[in-house]
Amino acid sequence: MRNVRIRVAYDGREYFGWQRQDGFPTVQQALEEALLATTGERVVVHGAGRTDTGVHALAQVAHFHLESALDDERLRHALNAHTAESIAIERVETCRDDFHARFDARSKHYLYLVATGRFRSPFAAGRAHWVRWPLDFERMQAAARLLRGRHDFKAFGNTGSPRPNTIRTLAQLRLVRRRRGFGMLAVADGFLYNMVRNLAGTLIDVGRGRLELAQVERALAEGRRDDAGATAPAQGLYLARVGYDECVFPGPDPGPPERAVDER
Amino acid sequence: MRNVRIRVAYDGREYFGWQRQDGFPTVQQALEEALLATTGERVVVHGAGRTDTGVHALAQVAHFHLESALDDERLRHALNAHTAESIAIERVETCRDDFHARFDARSKHYLYLVATGRFRSPFAAGRAHWVRWPLDFERMQAAARLLRGRHDFKAFGNTGSPRPNTIRTLAQLRLVRRRRGFGMLAVADGFLYNMVRNLAGTLIDVGRGRLELAQVERALAEGRRDDAGATAPAQGLYLARVGYDECVFPGPDPGPPERAVDER
Repeated sequence: MRNVRIRVAYDGREYFGWQRQDGFPTVQQALEEALLATTGERVVVHGAGRTDTGVHALAQVAHFHLESALDDERLRHALNAHTAESIAIERVETCRDDFHARFDARSKHYLYLVATGRFRSPFAAGRAHWVRWPLDFERMQAAARLLRGRHDFKAFGNTGSPRPNTIRTLAQLRLVRRRRGFGMLAVADGFLYNMVRNLAGTLIDVGRGRLELAQVERALAEGRRDDAGATAPAQGLYLARVGYDECVFPGPDPGPPERAVDER
Repeated sequence: MRNVRIRVAYDGREYFGWQRQDGFPTVQQALEEALLATTGERVVVHGAGRTDTGVHALAQVAHFHLESALDDERLRHALNAHTAESIAIERVETCRDDFHARFDARSKHYLYLVATGRFRSPFAAGRAHWVRWPLDFERMQAAARLLRGRHDFKAFGNTGSPRPNTIRTLAQLRLVRRRRGFGMLAVADGFLYNMVRNLAGTLIDVGRGRLELAQVERALAEGRRDDAGATAPAQGLYLARVGYDECVFPGPDPGPPERAVDER
């Protein structure tokens, strides 16, 4: 029995989130079924982040225990051959027996994409949150500066799920402006449920003038969900990176294969 | 009765092409149904380019005759409200009675997107053609230089459909390289059926070493389809612009609406 970790990208539109749910397609299920088809083994795939319905991943990390002696590269090819186009298994690496994708994670990077403009773009549908209102980018930057750092993020968690510890260190909260929208990059040691979507919704509400900077400060100080902004929809959210103390998936990603022999 | 022209973007994955076909959803049908729902009128929408199944449009142009006196902006809003997320009606403009989107078109711009890399990206699925082989970009540039200009493109048309005149002026054939792929921009006074996909397939075959530059020259000189490259798949193709002698849709695209009144 060996322990294997993988790095996976997926288009969240096709799935009811990461976690297995009877009767609904999920990413965990798709990977477990691909492993069953490839090796004949029924294994549980543990993901670093349990992304919700419609949330995407650029680089989710997961691990599972396997009997098969198939080498890592062959396993990667086989898994890709047994999954839909909406999932790509980019790296496969046999690792120490006690590596745990979720419990060993030290940081997570999320990206939140917002499309602006008067009409919805057919190419952003399901891939970015479309915001119709003009946004004051300077005010949003000011709000991001307030939110960065170590704070009690209680007001930015989900109202329904009290957690014993709602203090997190938001190491980065950056806004990157583009011609037809912007991206928000959030990096923290961990996130409360819905926290990235609540941060994005808060910055948008600040940008459109529905929320004052003083309210954002009060939300941090007093922890009331009502002082923070709306929960931005799942479709703009991407799990972009999971950080560990150890070096995972070292070296460059595999390039294209050796030049094929001329077939003519 | 007035004549109205529109500029439309769509995600081709959702449609069996532009042209109406019984029993299959098409873009023309979606627009005609939106017009029926909005105005109660059954009209025929004429598109500048009859894109195939899976082909996208950034800026298709179409026209139709309408009784309704609804002003252009209201009509645009109503049409967008009555179409799926995969279609965006970006401009609506009442125009001269005899404007014809297809017959008056003087040039068309197509973009062909290719993703490279060892594994398919879930985010490029249906939106770009995934090429696994290493490509020699310099050779592709050299082939593009051969193809530009006024030529008989018979070898780059569809084998099944002989046309009286297969001479076209390929005003531009440019390759734009990106980190994980490239784009091919083709501009001509008109294209034969499948011509853009055949040009893309030819450049890819040249890039991967399956086709010599001398064969491309021979294809142009002798007009045999076999000398040109494969037909690249529909999913990478975008109708990017249609050019007319007159100025259509002048001025900037509508910006975001006036700042909404603070709702709190």
